[in-house]
Amino acid sequence: MEWSGWGDPAEAPSLSPVALELLRGALGVRRPAPAVAAEDVRLPQVRLDDRLREELSAIVGVEHLRLDDRIRLLHTRGKSTTDLLRIRSGDADDAPDAVIFPGSHEEVLELLHRCGEAHIAVVPFGGGTSVVGGLQPRRDGFSAVVACDLGRMNRLLELDEESRTATLEPGLRGPDAEALLTDRGYTIGHHPQSFEYASVGGFAAVRSSGQASAGYGRFDERVVALRVATPRGTIETGRAPKSAAGPDLRQLFLGSEGTLGVITAIRIEVRPVPVARVYEGWRFDSFAAGREAVRRLAQDGSLPTVLRLSDEAETAVNLARPGQVGDGGRAGGALAITGYEGKADEVEWRRGAVSAVLRALPAEPDPSAGADWFDDRYKGPYLRDALLGAGALVETLETATFWSGVERLYHDVGGALRESLTKLGTPPVVLCHISHVYASGASLYFTVGAAQLDDPVAQWHAAKSAASDAILGAGGSITHHHGVGVDHREHYFREIGPTAIEALRAVKATLDPAGILNPGVLLG
Amino acid sequence: MEWSGWGDPAEAPSLSPVALELLRGALGVRRPAPAVAAEDVRLPQVRLDDRLREELSAIVGVEHLRLDDRIRLLHTRGKSTTDLLRIRSGDADDAPDAVIFPGSHEEVLELLHRCGEAHIAVVPFGGGTSVVGGLQPRRDGFSAVVACDLGRMNRLLELDEESRTATLEPGLRGPDAEALLTDRGYTIGHHPQSFEYASVGGFAAVRSSGQASAGYGRFDERVVALRVATPRGTIETGRAPKSAAGPDLRQLFLGSEGTLGVITAIRIEVRPVPVARVYEGWRFDSFAAGREAVRRLAQDGSLPTVLRLSDEAETAVNLARPGQVGDGGRAGGALAITGYEGKADEVEWRRGAVSAVLRALPAEPDPSAGADWFDDRYKGPYLRDALLGAGALVETLETATFWSGVERLYHDVGGALRESLTKLGTPPVVLCHISHVYASGASLYFTVGAAQLDDPVAQWHAAKSAASDAILGAGGSITHHHGVGVDHREHYFREIGPTAIEALRAVKATLDPAGILNPGVLLG
Repeated sequence: MEWSGWGDPAEAPSLSPVALELLRGALGVRRPAPAVAAEDVRLPQVRLDDRLREELSAIVGVEHLRLDDRIRLLHTRGKSTTDLLRIRSGDADDAPDAVIFPGSHEEVLELLHRCGEAHIAVVPFGGGTSVVGGLQPRRDGFSAVVACDLGRMNRLLELDEESRTATLEPGLRGPDAEALLTDRGYTIGHHPQSFEYASVGGFAAVRSSGQASAGYGRFDERVVALRVATPRGTIETGRAPKSAAGPDLRQLFLGSEGTLGVITAIRIEVRPVPVARVYEGWRFDSFAAGREAVRRLAQDGSLPTVLRLSDEAETAVNLARPGQVGDGGRAGGALAITGYEGKADEVEWRRGAVSAVLRALPAEPDPSAGADWFDDRYKGPYLRDALLGAGALVETLETATFWSGVERLYHDVGGALRESLTKLGTPPVVLCHISHVYASGASLYFTVGAAQLDDPVAQWHAAKSAASDAILGAGGSITHHHGVGVDHREHYFREIGPTAIEALRAVKATLDPAGILNPGVLLG
Repeated sequence: MEWSGWGDPAEAPSLSPVALELLRGALGVRRPAPAVAAEDVRLPQVRLDDRLREELSAIVGVEHLRLDDRIRLLHTRGKSTTDLLRIRSGDADDAPDAVIFPGSHEEVLELLHRCGEAHIAVVPFGGGTSVVGGLQPRRDGFSAVVACDLGRMNRLLELDEESRTATLEPGLRGPDAEALLTDRGYTIGHHPQSFEYASVGGFAAVRSSGQASAGYGRFDERVVALRVATPRGTIETGRAPKSAAGPDLRQLFLGSEGTLGVITAIRIEVRPVPVARVYEGWRFDSFAAGREAVRRLAQDGSLPTVLRLSDEAETAVNLARPGQVGDGGRAGGALAITGYEGKADEVEWRRGAVSAVLRALPAEPDPSAGADWFDDRYKGPYLRDALLGAGALVETLETATFWSGVERLYHDVGGALRESLTKLGTPPVVLCHISHVYASGASLYFTVGAAQLDDPVAQWHAAKSAASDAILGAGGSITHHHGVGVDHREHYFREIGPTAIEALRAVKATLDPAGILNPGVLLG
């Protein structure tokens, strides 16, 4: 992972002259905004004395405690636009004092125990792909901050073919987990945009939802058991797919964002590798017409494996094909992507049923759009980086609500983004798509582009704050799949209310009495 | 509801001479065990002084605070076999001092506040159908115990047709909730055996699973929002079908069994009333062969709406047709019930897909078994009452685990029941069926019959304790859909472990600082 942006720099696209012209014309972008050199990034002094270094090294092995700047830099914050703007400007104030790579559940337990005694904050670190400040702990009051990188815990612990479950260690990245499973004929089928770098533990800790959620479900819906290392010891939960033995404890750790414990094993439902795969596109007259269509599919229970619907603005800039953004030749109306995966007859049957509904609505087929989207489905973050470098401010945010509230939510959040950024003198482009549908509601995913001001972090905060207020005002949830982190904390508290926050803090005080786990994130 | 048994006495069957002969022959039942007369039941003195009576009356209205013996008797414990054995012997020591019928969320809040100050234990009471001691609170240390009967809170608060959700008050019984919805063209589709008497609030509080769970899902899977009155105020949770805003708080109250708050509104996904309905039966050579078949259906994702599989013993006594128990004419092998509900073409397609799989396995169709089961699907509890009166000890228990553990769980629990009861001199009949299947596992539901000893409560405790030990030993969950109550508390603690219990107790201490809500149940 690149310290100043997403993924592998070799994969990063350069922007076409058409795209650059579009930025200048549509957004008024004036000048590029390059990153500083890595050696010019300011890292804080390491606050970890020799005795503690030795003690922590004794737990994980001396080669698995790292204090060098390069490693610390790579564990500084996550991959939100403000994270990147800060680090690209040379600010790595949130760098951990050290990065520790435990190799086992027992080592994690020991680390938590020792860090609790020494009042060292511990940031569980998977893929480092948080876009909500989930890796930016509060530092004050702690003797040091260490990132607990789970990358060495990357085994497939068990494949239970009879139960169709796999037990995975948390540090496995998406592609590595899939490779271990597809070798044996199985897949998780969980493919968020961050798939190539994000980890299985992170998927669980933030209730991740993948692009194929319509067919495979959310990650948290498919987790059947968890092992968690807490400062108070081990919790193992999940003896059956479902149980009536009290509140579902799995659901306490799913979404806990490293604040209640470190998830060290995840047992998840797997499926046979699909033998057939068809992706295609459909074009509706309008986003409103498309929304009615995807709602109908969700409520009739005849969903494709992947179902996404771009609004008119997103369709016009062709964002469903990140490789062809700005190529508006095929624009117009609202583009939906439908994908089917599974056994050949199942794919054919389901595709036939969905197509019949869509054709009658009416929607026009746009067959090539599906393959284009599939090819480019992980490219969004690279595109964002290129645009940041070119002087644009680009970020995404997402929410969800029930169907009867979707239109208002769409209207209010888009309006808040346009109004707040226009007021700052940078009228934005606001794009939106529905990427996750349920019988009772859907998510909305917004992409915003504007020209960068001199202080783009403050600029984005103003827009984000207006959008977050609009989300709560319209009855939406502050996040559908990105999580809370630090960035959504204020609005999360408003969403669930002070009594519920107190109840969750009581859980935290029990499991993490010294408050060392990801302080300031989610509940802190 | 009858004080000494299930439901409406007019509906209770009398046992046929064939059945009685079977009891004598197979179980060695010697003499009937009639209930005492209602007027001979011993109720404890009411412990609620005049001042408190007046204060509580002022909250709900004087006609909604009841202290008469008849009402207290009807709110004493639930409907487990030991509950019935006790009350039929005249023991109503657990009767509440008073029964309060609040009419609104605000009245519940006020009641909880006042009862907290006065240290009065409050037992939220829906349909009164708990079979795990969920209505049998700890009395010591409290000035009084009141049952909070939610029967007056029985409205459909909102039907959101666009989102396909209904918001219901907790006191609605199953049939009343369905009637309100089917009038408008919708159904919840949740039909546990207790359907005719259990309440919507109870379904939520104990994570109920209905007979049609394969098609409609569990009740807790379909709840999208909850309003809860706690002693610390109101918590509202659920702004979207799914969210990544921290742990799913709905899942903290689902399964909380009245210990964290009183659920006063439930928003749940509804579906259009099915226009087509087909029920049929299939016969496998053995329970093992049938298990493989239902696992395959669950893992292929081609499930009927209802799917049940009886083992050889249950098939032999014909328990899937409670109206024809003992008529073994059609017995042999393992009987599965498959039911399909929905739109006509959907039912036909699904039925065709399932039937093709089953026929090939091979399984033999037994078409009339489906309709027979459907007709008798709520009759089990009546049959149990008749058998109790005839001198048999009859009870059920249930568990769940992952598929790879199902065979061992089946073997060990059945073995523990047979061994423990045989040791007491009452060799039992042990029947079992699978009634809820998932991709990764299934539930097992055991029915046990034996001759009653002089102390049938102690007799059952010995058997139940052996069975519960066997469940935990085989890796199962102590309950799949009955809940924890008082009866499963010890094994629940062993299942989730002391640290998790402490975490949940911290939530309780936050929301219910005086510990008045259903003390002794689940966490207490």
